[in-house]
Amino acid sequence: MYGGAFEVSDLTDAEVDAIYERYVPLTEEVRDLVDLAIRSEVGDDEVARAREHLRAAAEILRAQAPPGPVGVKYNATGRSWQWGNAVVGQRNAIAPPMVVDRHADGTTSARLTLSPAYEGPPGMVHGGVSALLLDHLMGVTASAMKKLTMTGTLSLRYTQPLPLGEIWLAGRVVSDTGRKVTVKAEIGGADGVAVAAEGLFIVPRWAVED
Amino acid sequence: MYGGAFEVSDLTDAEVDAIYERYVPLTEEVRDLVDLAIRSEVGDDEVARAREHLRAAAEILRAQAPPGPVGVKYNATGRSWQWGNAVVGQRNAIAPPMVVDRHADGTTSARLTLSPAYEGPPGMVHGGVSALLLDHLMGVTASAMKKLTMTGTLSLRYTQPLPLGEIWLAGRVVSDTGRKVTVKAEIGGADGVAVAAEGLFIVPRWAVED
Repeated sequence: MYGGAFEVSDLTDAEVDAIYERYVPLTEEVRDLVDLAIRSEVGDDEVARAREHLRAAAEILRAQAPPGPVGVKYNATGRSWQWGNAVVGQRNAIAPPMVVDRHADGTTSARLTLSPAYEGPPGMVHGGVSALLLDHLMGVTASAMKKLTMTGTLSLRYTQPLPLGEIWLAGRVVSDTGRKVTVKAEIGGADGVAVAAEGLFIVPRWAVED
Repeated sequence: MYGGAFEVSDLTDAEVDAIYERYVPLTEEVRDLVDLAIRSEVGDDEVARAREHLRAAAEILRAQAPPGPVGVKYNATGRSWQWGNAVVGQRNAIAPPMVVDRHADGTTSARLTLSPAYEGPPGMVHGGVSALLLDHLMGVTASAMKKLTMTGTLSLRYTQPLPLGEIWLAGRVVSDTGRKVTVKAEIGGADGVAVAAEGLFIVPRWAVED
């Protein structure tokens, strides 16, 4: 088990804010480059010049960059952050990033735009990307009122292709027996639901015994 | 339906090779920047200088970059490419990229290294990333001998967390009734299987009637 290695951080809220202000715009620019690396049709000379800039940027950023994943951290005020998370990490250019809204009735939802980098079938969201986003939203849904849950099982039913662009997700808890939470969720676009999912999320024993 | 919009391309094999040679190293450098945007701890001035380089690179690449997803293309020799694919696209910095090996007995496998950008729980592969990779490998497995399949259902059972780093996947067809192919697959690391999956993949009607 990963032992719930949520690390305590010495950073104050103001310092965390400063890091976000510094790195979120940089991450947006990296996202832009992810997109352009797929779509650009410029020639050898232009690509060579672009690569010089990319290497220069990397050299600057690498001057102080401890190895390894950044994990989930929290500070003395109880604020937590996971900026490297593959779905919601604001410093992760792989993440769209998705922002999950929690509603008063316990349901969750998200709206986001998926760029060409999330393509599977031509013009469509990769089926596995739908699974990735659903898994994350469902985990957040299950974790409401709990310290933490982990995915136990996940079942997905694909009903129609989902075009790239604006998409939505919605989730809700359908049963909660303490250590086991069942969640249903859907992802879709303008034409309605594309994938319906049901998942069983489990509170790890170490999190209960805490 | 997306209508299987695999587009015919005028590019020769040599031209496709030249594009790969031009853009794959650039994409690797963007992957490096994805990683550094998460891990770097340099200050405001350094980030500002790095961002200048990123914007300069983007401006060069954007000079000729048709909008929209790049889809799946094939040429007169029957070669096909999908360099924007979210899992296997070699020009997609979001893709690890995974390379799926097909074996003589119909099974499939892949070995790859997942960087900190694929993180979910601290130090671990995001559960949804496991689903993303499994979905793609299983689709490839189901598509052997068929023109094309689409995910119908996908069921995943998570048995243990999967540490970031070197991982493997393995897939096999367990039944094939013509238009419906059932595939089983697993993803794991040094400690064995982390997620076991079963999926039903469907050959779209339009692909049968071709």
